[in-house]
Order: sequence, then structure tokens, then C-alpha cells
Amino acid sequence: MGSMSMRISHLPRSSLPLQNPFSSNRNFRHGCSRILSNSFKSTSRLQTKALVSEISDQTHYPRIGAKSTGTISPAHLLEVVELAAKTGAEVVMEAVNKPRNITYKGLSDLVTDTDKASEAAILEVVKKNFSDHLILGEEGGIIGDSSSDYLWCIDPLDGTTNFAHGYPSFAVSVGVLYRGNPAAASVVEFVGGPMCWNTRTFSATAGGGALCNGQKIHVSETDAVERALLITGFGYEHDDAWSTNMELFKEFTDVSRGVRRLGAAAVDMCHVALGIAESYWEYRLKPWDMAAGVLIVEEAGGAVTRMDGGKFSVFDRSVLVSNGVLHSKLLERIAPATENLKSKGIDFSLWFKPEDYHTEL
Amino acid sequence: MGSMSMRISHLPRSSLPLQNPFSSNRNFRHGCSRILSNSFKSTSRLQTKALVSEISDQTHYPRIGAKSTGTISPAHLLEVVELAAKTGAEVVMEAVNKPRNITYKGLSDLVTDTDKASEAAILEVVKKNFSDHLILGEEGGIIGDSSSDYLWCIDPLDGTTNFAHGYPSFAVSVGVLYRGNPAAASVVEFVGGPMCWNTRTFSATAGGGALCNGQKIHVSETDAVERALLITGFGYEHDDAWSTNMELFKEFTDVSRGVRRLGAAAVDMCHVALGIAESYWEYRLKPWDMAAGVLIVEEAGGAVTRMDGGKFSVFDRSVLVSNGVLHSKLLERIAPATENLKSKGIDFSLWFKPEDYHTEL
Repeated sequence: MGSMSMRISHLPRSSLPLQNPFSSNRNFRHGCSRILSNSFKSTSRLQTKALVSEISDQTHYPRIGAKSTGTISPAHLLEVVELAAKTGAEVVMEAVNKPRNITYKGLSDLVTDTDKASEAAILEVVKKNFSDHLILGEEGGIIGDSSSDYLWCIDPLDGTTNFAHGYPSFAVSVGVLYRGNPAAASVVEFVGGPMCWNTRTFSATAGGGALCNGQKIHVSETDAVERALLITGFGYEHDDAWSTNMELFKEFTDVSRGVRRLGAAAVDMCHVALGIAESYWEYRLKPWDMAAGVLIVEEAGGAVTRMDGGKFSVFDRSVLVSNGVLHSKLLERIAPATENLKSKGIDFSLWFKPEDYHTEL
Repeated sequence: MGSMSMRISHLPRSSLPLQNPFSSNRNFRHGCSRILSNSFKSTSRLQTKALVSEISDQTHYPRIGAKSTGTISPAHLLEVVELAAKTGAEVVMEAVNKPRNITYKGLSDLVTDTDKASEAAILEVVKKNFSDHLILGEEGGIIGDSSSDYLWCIDPLDGTTNFAHGYPSFAVSVGVLYRGNPAAASVVEFVGGPMCWNTRTFSATAGGGALCNGQKIHVSETDAVERALLITGFGYEHDDAWSTNMELFKEFTDVSRGVRRLGAAAVDMCHVALGIAESYWEYRLKPWDMAAGVLIVEEAGGAVTRMDGGKFSVFDRSVLVSNGVLHSKLLERIAPATENLKSKGIDFSLWFKPEDYHTEL
């Protein structure tokens, strides 16, 4: 991490969760009725209370995707992002059934040769296509031109613990920001496990929708927590935020159909985008964990905020993604828990933001 | 459940966890060194303390598999068990990508048409081959001749919530007991999820080893909790045992590489047998959840006990399976928590045991 230059930024941030869009009319798997206008409970932080109709396309939570892809066309950016993720995934697939050397970052944080080889392969693709872009990799820190509008956020192997055990799922995650906001994304998920490894590729461009294996995908329409399947994660640092999330895990296991704990952030977000789970949240993720997944969820019709309900950026320390229609209901429990952490002085300022990288956050 | 006849049995039970075999010399995925003779911490409940060598084949925890398959050959019994599970899985696979009608057992307990259709298909296979056997199905209760030595325990769709959401994994689980002990088992796991559904078939006969897709499988050799990937589950009933397991989830998330929560007991046990996770435990499972999985774990070289460390039967209200080498270490935390539940008067007597079914437990 020697080359990484980080700055904790204290930008003025809004804590106002606005109401949420639900633009899908796709009925995924269950025939849940949608009585949306009554399903939003008013809270003191809600500023507007709009009727959300079956064909609504309103944006109630601030969009996190970039307004444009700048001087590079969305199609070209997507092409390179997908190639980069695919190239990393080929390295990972080769390694999936081989023994490997494991070294330790911390007690439970594994880094394998495969992480490094995957990141090197991805970097080569990015540099070959965009020699002047800034790149933030989990393994290699920050490289490239800090005056670039583009920042690539690379997780060469998201879910290293699962990978080391051969336990599905894990992924290669590549997201590229334009002036700080996610512009294009690709996640290659490794599914199945021993005897039946396979991959599934998610991708998205800002404003262009989300795809899985080339097919348009959409979040679920489930509009009640008690019918929702939820997902969370617990980081390596066992701090106050970790304990708070244990409480949330317990609370939501109690009131929902279940909280899954699979162990790979990018994968978990893609599962929300795919409509097979309704929401995912976690404290203390890094930009490379989130940059691709959040865009894929938003482009699949979902909502993305911080866990206090405020506008999200990939440099934030918490994320809540959902199918959109459930977002406010989830925040009713998750936001106060997060505010409580803040009131204890827990730092929720931006982190892992390259110092000179210019953003429009 | 009208035809089901149950009796709560209070057989004399031992609470003596004996030490555990670890007969594998297969090095699965990580090159974990095995310093086993020092890895067993003595507890007041341990009766013996044997040296466990690399080639040890001693049984330290009582085996839960049947001593024989009776008048039916192991090969024939396995053939029918596998055919039964495969037949159910065909019904499930047909339904995987179709919309379905969901009715409710309880708040979060789904029963779909698919459960029922799968069970009907499995019953047909069993009855056609063994018209006089006793059958206990999740959906249909108990049918057949209660004087039979054989009891089939059928979960036509383990992980119904996952199935309803299209979230992997779920399974069809078929286990057959001979005089109360698991004699043969087959679990067909549905992996991958939308865009890449696939299945993986586990099977075992008592004394004959465990297979996945026809290949011998073995539990992992990981001998330290801090390098272990663990799994647990939380049932629909949110009682004292549920709360205790929340505490265990928190404790083990803190000290291990992570506790996964995937939502299908038979699948979770097969993952331990496959060596991709080290242990799984849960309170309040039913015979149809456990009968196949426990035999597959034991035949893959793992250990199976109750969560208090006592000798397990499929009619028990808790199960702990592991790779064997970690069993005592896990019991150091799990057994006292379970004893504490007992001291509060929580019922851990046998349940779901067909009244007249003769066993050698």
C-alpha cells in the first residue's frame, strides 16, 4: 500500500433520505401485491411523501451513478470494464481448483497469490486502454494520473475467505468512476463450488441499465420486510459498528424471512440486483468492494444510500442497497442504529478517497 | 400432518462427548499443519485422551450411522435412495424458473406446490421399491408399516425460503434409517441461481464412505477455529434456543474466519462433508432435515453429536457436525451454552419419533 495516498475528507453531507423510486413492473418469482403509497411510513427525516404508482420512474433517493461517462462513450467504457473483469476472472478460475499459498493481512484476512495475479491482469487491461486513468486496487493501492476524471476501483478477488475455502460465492469486481460517481461496472461471480464451478457476469453503465449474462435484470418487487430475504456482512475489524450490525442481524432475522451471510460484498449486491434478495447492508467497506455493485443495483432499479440514509459515495463507510420499495422501511431500523454510532463519536467521514482526485460529489 | 403420530421419548442419554477420529490425510485447499494431539483441550466431560495420528482411524465420538443396512444390501438401498432424491430433484428443477403459488405455514415458513409435488414423486419411488417401509415426510407426515426396521426421512425441498426467492442453495434430502440409525442418504443440492442453475449430488451408505457426483469426498483438515469457516442456521421459532444461537453466531463470527448463514440444513451439512466449511450447528431441526446430511458428514470423515456433545440421533433437537478435528474445540463454547438452555428447563428430549418405530438408539 506504499503508493497509496489517502485523505479523510469532510465534505458537507446531507442526512436526508428522500423517498424512493420503484420503476419496475416486473414480477420476479413471487406474486407480491404492490400497495406502495401506503407502504412508506413517514419519519421525521422524510421531506416529501409522493404517491408511487406502478409506472413511477421518480427518483426519491439521490442517484449515485455518474451523470455521464465523460469523453469516453458508455459502450466503450463498458467494453473495457467487462474485459478487465473477465481477464481477472480467468486468473481466478485457473486457481479455483489448485492448492495455493496463503499469507495473512490480519487474523482472518487472507491474501492469496491469486488476488495479486488477478489484479495484475486487470491493471494491464486498464492501462493498455486508458494509460492516463487513476486506478485504486485492493492489493496495489493507487496508481496513475490523479488529475484524471476516471478512477478505477478494482477488487481482484472479493470474498477471499470463501475463495480460500472453495466456498461459493466470490467475485472479481471492477467499477470505474467518472468524477467520483460510478459510471460503469462489471462483476464476475463464481458460483456453485467444487464439482460444479461456474460464473455469472453482471454489468451496468450509468443510465444504461443492468445486465446479467447479457440479459436485463431487475430488483424484486417485495414490499414487506416480513417477506424479504436480506443479506449483510461483518468486516474483519470488530469495533462498535460490528457490534451494532450484530444487533441489526438479530433484529432483522427476527422480523424478515432471513438474513443471509455469504461473505462477498460485490456478490451480495448483485444478488439484490438480480432480484433474489431484497437488501444488503454493511459498515466499513472500501471503494473497491462497492464501486461496481452499487451501480449494478441502482441500474437494476434499486436504491443505494449510506446506512444513515444519507447520499452515498463509494468513499463512504457504510452502504445500504435495496430493491427500492423496502428502503425506507429498512432505514427505520438501520438509520437510528447508525446515528447512535455517530453520536458515540464513531468516524463516518469519507475515507479511501485519493487525495487529488477531483469529484463532483 | 393428520396422519402423523408422534411421541416424545425420554430415552436415557449420554452426555459424554468422546474424542474424535480424523482419518483423512487429504489436504483440502489449504496446507494446514496438523498438530492434533495437542489440539484437544481437556474438559471435564472428556473421558479419554488419545493420541490422534495422521493415519488414525479411531472413533472418538460415537458413530451415528447404522451398523448394517439389514436385509437390504447397501448397494440396493443406496440405489433407491439416490433414485428417490433424483426424482424429487427433477420436480424441483422443473419449477425453479417458473412462478409458483406460495401459501403460509407460519409467518416465514413457506410451503410451495413444489414441496408437495416433490414429496409425492419421492414417495412413489420408495413405495414402489419397498412397500412395507415406514416413511416420514416433511409435508405428509408418517405413513407405512410402523413395524418396519426402515424409516425414510424425506425433505422434498430443504431451504424453501431460498427456493421461493431463487436464492441458492436449497436441496432435496432423502435419508433412510435402519432401526433408528442412518443407513443410506442422498442430497441433491441446487447451486448457482438464476442464469446458471446446476445440481450437485451427495450420497453415502453407513460404512461405505461419502460421494459427491460420484467422487469420494472428505472433510477438511483445518484444526484451528481461527482458520475455520463455520455455518449455522436460525429456525422459524424465535425461542430461547434461537437467542442462544444468536450469541453463538456472534461469538464465533468474532473468533473464526466467519460464520455463514445460507439457509438449508442439508446443504450446509454437505458443505462440511465436501470440506469447504469446517462445521455446522443448529437447534430444533427435524429428522427430515438431518437424516441424510449427518450420515454424509460422518462418512466423509467428520463427527456428529448433539450440541451438548452427547450422542446424536435424528430424533434429537440439536445437531453439531464438524470436520472432526475441531469438534472438541467447538463444543467448548457450544456445549455450555446448550447446557445452560437445559438448566432453564428448555426441552431437549427426543421429538418427532414415530411412536411404534423400533430403534436401537
